[in-house]
Amino acid sequence: MTGDLWTRWAERNAAAGFIDACLRGVGQIFFQNNPLCGAVLLAGLFWGAYAEGRPYVAYGALAGVVVATATARLLRADRNAVAQGLFGFNGALVGAALPTFLGPGIALGGYVVLGAAVSTVVTLAIANVVKTWRVPGSTAPFVLTAWLLLLAAYSFAGIPLAAMGPPALPPPAAPATHFAPDAAAALAILAKNVSQVYLVENVVTGALFLVAIGIGSWRCALFAVLGSAVSVAVAVAFGAKAAAIGAGLFGFSAVLTAIAVGAVFNAPSLRATLYAMLATVFTVIAQAALDTALTPVGIPTLTFPYVLAMWLFLLPKIDVVPEPHHQPVPNGVASAD
Amino acid sequence: MTGDLWTRWAERNAAAGFIDACLRGVGQIFFQNNPLCGAVLLAGLFWGAYAEGRPYVAYGALAGVVVATATARLLRADRNAVAQGLFGFNGALVGAALPTFLGPGIALGGYVVLGAAVSTVVTLAIANVVKTWRVPGSTAPFVLTAWLLLLAAYSFAGIPLAAMGPPALPPPAAPATHFAPDAAAALAILAKNVSQVYLVENVVTGALFLVAIGIGSWRCALFAVLGSAVSVAVAVAFGAKAAAIGAGLFGFSAVLTAIAVGAVFNAPSLRATLYAMLATVFTVIAQAALDTALTPVGIPTLTFPYVLAMWLFLLPKIDVVPEPHHQPVPNGVASAD
Amino acid sequence: MTGDLWTRWAERNAAAGFIDACLRGVGQIFFQNNPLCGAVLLAGLFWGAYAEGRPYVAYGALAGVVVATATARLLRADRNAVAQGLFGFNGALVGAALPTFLGPGIALGGYVVLGAAVSTVVTLAIANVVKTWRVPGSTAPFVLTAWLLLLAAYSFAGIPLAAMGPPALPPPAAPATHFAPDAAAALAILAKNVSQVYLVENVVTGALFLVAIGIGSWRCALFAVLGSAVSVAVAVAFGAKAAAIGAGLFGFSAVLTAIAVGAVFNAPSLRATLYAMLATVFTVIAQAALDTALTPVGIPTLTFPYVLAMWLFLLPKIDVVPEPHHQPVPNGVASAD
Repeated sequence: MTGDLWTRWAERNAAAGFIDACLRGVGQIFFQNNPLCGAVLLAGLFWGAYAEGRPYVAYGALAGVVVATATARLLRADRNAVAQGLFGFNGALVGAALPTFLGPGIALGGYVVLGAAVSTVVTLAIANVVKTWRVPGSTAPFVLTAWLLLLAAYSFAGIPLAAMGPPALPPPAAPATHFAPDAAAALAILAKNVSQVYLVENVVTGALFLVAIGIGSWRCALFAVLGSAVSVAVAVAFGAKAAAIGAGLFGFSAVLTAIAVGAVFNAPSLRATLYAMLATVFTVIAQAALDTALTPVGIPTLTFPYVLAMWLFLLPKIDVVPEPHHQPVPNGVASAD
Repeated sequence: MTGDLWTRWAERNAAAGFIDACLRGVGQIFFQNNPLCGAVLLAGLFWGAYAEGRPYVAYGALAGVVVATATARLLRADRNAVAQGLFGFNGALVGAALPTFLGPGIALGGYVVLGAAVSTVVTLAIANVVKTWRVPGSTAPFVLTAWLLLLAAYSFAGIPLAAMGPPALPPPAAPATHFAPDAAAALAILAKNVSQVYLVENVVTGALFLVAIGIGSWRCALFAVLGSAVSVAVAVAFGAKAAAIGAGLFGFSAVLTAIAVGAVFNAPSLRATLYAMLATVFTVIAQAALDTALTPVGIPTLTFPYVLAMWLFLLPKIDVVPEPHHQPVPNGVASAD
Repeated sequence: MTGDLWTRWAERNAAAGFIDACLRGVGQIFFQNNPLCGAVLLAGLFWGAYAEGRPYVAYGALAGVVVATATARLLRADRNAVAQGLFGFNGALVGAALPTFLGPGIALGGYVVLGAAVSTVVTLAIANVVKTWRVPGSTAPFVLTAWLLLLAAYSFAGIPLAAMGPPALPPPAAPATHFAPDAAAALAILAKNVSQVYLVENVVTGALFLVAIGIGSWRCALFAVLGSAVSVAVAVAFGAKAAAIGAGLFGFSAVLTAIAVGAVFNAPSLRATLYAMLATVFTVIAQAALDTALTPVGIPTLTFPYVLAMWLFLLPKIDVVPEPHHQPVPNGVASAD
């Protein structure tokens, strides 16, 4: 009822329509095209950001979704896609990530605005590339844009670093680690895996995020919990660092992979569920791999482990046949006559 | 005769068909769709692995080709492509590579099975992407999958490292090196360049591999020898480290490039041969470049120098015209209006 | 008049035609299909190279454009594209870059010839890939080819390094910096930003380059100055290192981005100009980011900041709609059945 009223208002009123697009944008990170879901996510985000003493993370996300959505309008992107929030979530993530890893200051504000605006350009760029194979760009624009801005901060005296780096060589061997949480701690990790998608480590936030996802789709919420649990089991089995597991850092990409591969981009089935679980296990490997690979340049993986796993598991199509490995390919410059 | 009998049996009997696909899979690394070639390669691999005291490399390759081929069946990949072994060779390479660079243990077994299964997903993913330009994915799925698993090992206490790393900064200048093998040593290097494709440094293995390739195609065997010789000459001319040249580490990618560009993916001609030699020279450059680039993250190049050279030399097509560098491209968002 | 006479002669005489293609190749770096423009650029390049005491940079560029253009003829690339110089500019840049970063010697000569020849293969390869989305490959072939050759030099005792490296970890924070040039110094930087496109730091060269660009298109010359000025303002605002700004190292990619996005690949308009300015600002971020990212492997960014910004800002098309983030994509292997 209320939802219908709001939707009709948003269709008639320009300001309400813009707010609707921004709320949907916040929700699209968890694949929900639903303004109420976005509002609850935002509430969870503000709760966690204040609880952690880092309110600017929530304000950054808010600024990011507004700037990115407005930029999409200015670039005359597809009206329907803008209204669904498809240009907002990458900006929101840029806005949450920059104040997480960089120090406060005037320059940071400009950095967030610039990053969110550019994230919309990059969203269009990546969408053009990946539509060739009918896979979504998802959070790839956020990752690319934020990586560049974070790497650049090492060269800019005006952009102080905060919780990032220093660049280092990966240690030659992973130290032994001890992971023995009680039931409450284990539950907390399941929630933090979800809250870390918005770069917040907070149990209440994670719970609110699950509620928000469930408002849009109970199946998505279920796969979020499933992905969260599987990622912890796999990370523990391989001996990942207990502190990182405990902070939800091995789970946030896995949560997204589980929802994406198991409940959104494939029609639901047992087959899709098993496939999604393999993708989730692989996301934990990708998380560990990217943690290593990015150590020398001192930047975080962001959601790239998810993006990589999502692409690798959605690119296989039922009609793909590999190029034969034992006969000429057509039209090569060297085979011409 | 015997070959015909086997092929007919493999077509009727499910178990024989699966074994046939696995043997062809082992052979497809050298571009041979031939179960006898695969069997001889396997014999050479087991010989070398036992001779080096590392039998698990051969068992890993065997497990890898079985798991990868079975995964392709489960994913309902194109039946004909599965039967030709096109989903087996990347799994075999993953299975050979992981025990080469990682320490033994229970976790390693799970790692091999997981890696081989994922290699099939990645094979389908990359095949979908590169078919856009009619070039093969070849061993790219092996490289991507194994790189991620190896990088991840640095973050996992449960996966001990063996012959890999430590991560380091590349030395600021290459040390002078002295390369003066006698004729026998030079011949040994030619063979090791071939055996190293399966991560084994063994002259008998290299010779058996050449026999196996020759069973499928004398031309491919010839280009293997040619690529092997050219790579050594180029590496010596540029002053590459003698120890690496001696171990066959500057040759294995070059061998694959020479066969691929000169004898498989282009129709044979003098023109294709000269083009393949340029590609082979470039593979040695790419090998040296990737050795440098991967030093800070402590992982080996695997066959990526080959993949890069193969792609760069097969992507040029007779009908490609570069986008003009001096006039607008169509439909840009900024030129709309 | 003279131009017409030359063009007619170049069409009839093979040698003149080849020289014409090479001169146009030199000019195509600045998006000019004009032999006179190429001749003036070459004059500026030789002036600066001698003034800096590094004449081999100019001779390298000359050798590079000749080898790359000849290779394109040998590969039977599209005759019209060869005649327009579209296969020359990447070779010219390879020829200018290698002697800038590597030490003199016989091997360097072979390296330049090899690199220029391969740059033509890579030009065809990248053209094939990027034509899928109707964007130009531009200087990407130069960047890829030269990066591989430069990285390889760290592994080759026969290729001494000069002004490059050593590989290092990026400093954990950018040092405070002081930038206070007088008017003359500021003007000099504007010119050096242009001359650095050909790896030369020289005011006269920069001025001659602007004249050369203006011969082909006054609008391109205007955007070169605009991009140059904006890049300095942005780099100063973010606190980039004064020495690097002063040497033109934050401007050369930005100059190319401004011309490409504002005056060449989009039809001219206020909208395109504003879009190009955003792209130019982003190029400065990309420059700083790549400076950080490449520090551990000890190679320069070359023009990759431009290539990245140009691609990201030209890929968005008016008809691109992102794949929805909340519904299945077609034909996935896991959704089959």
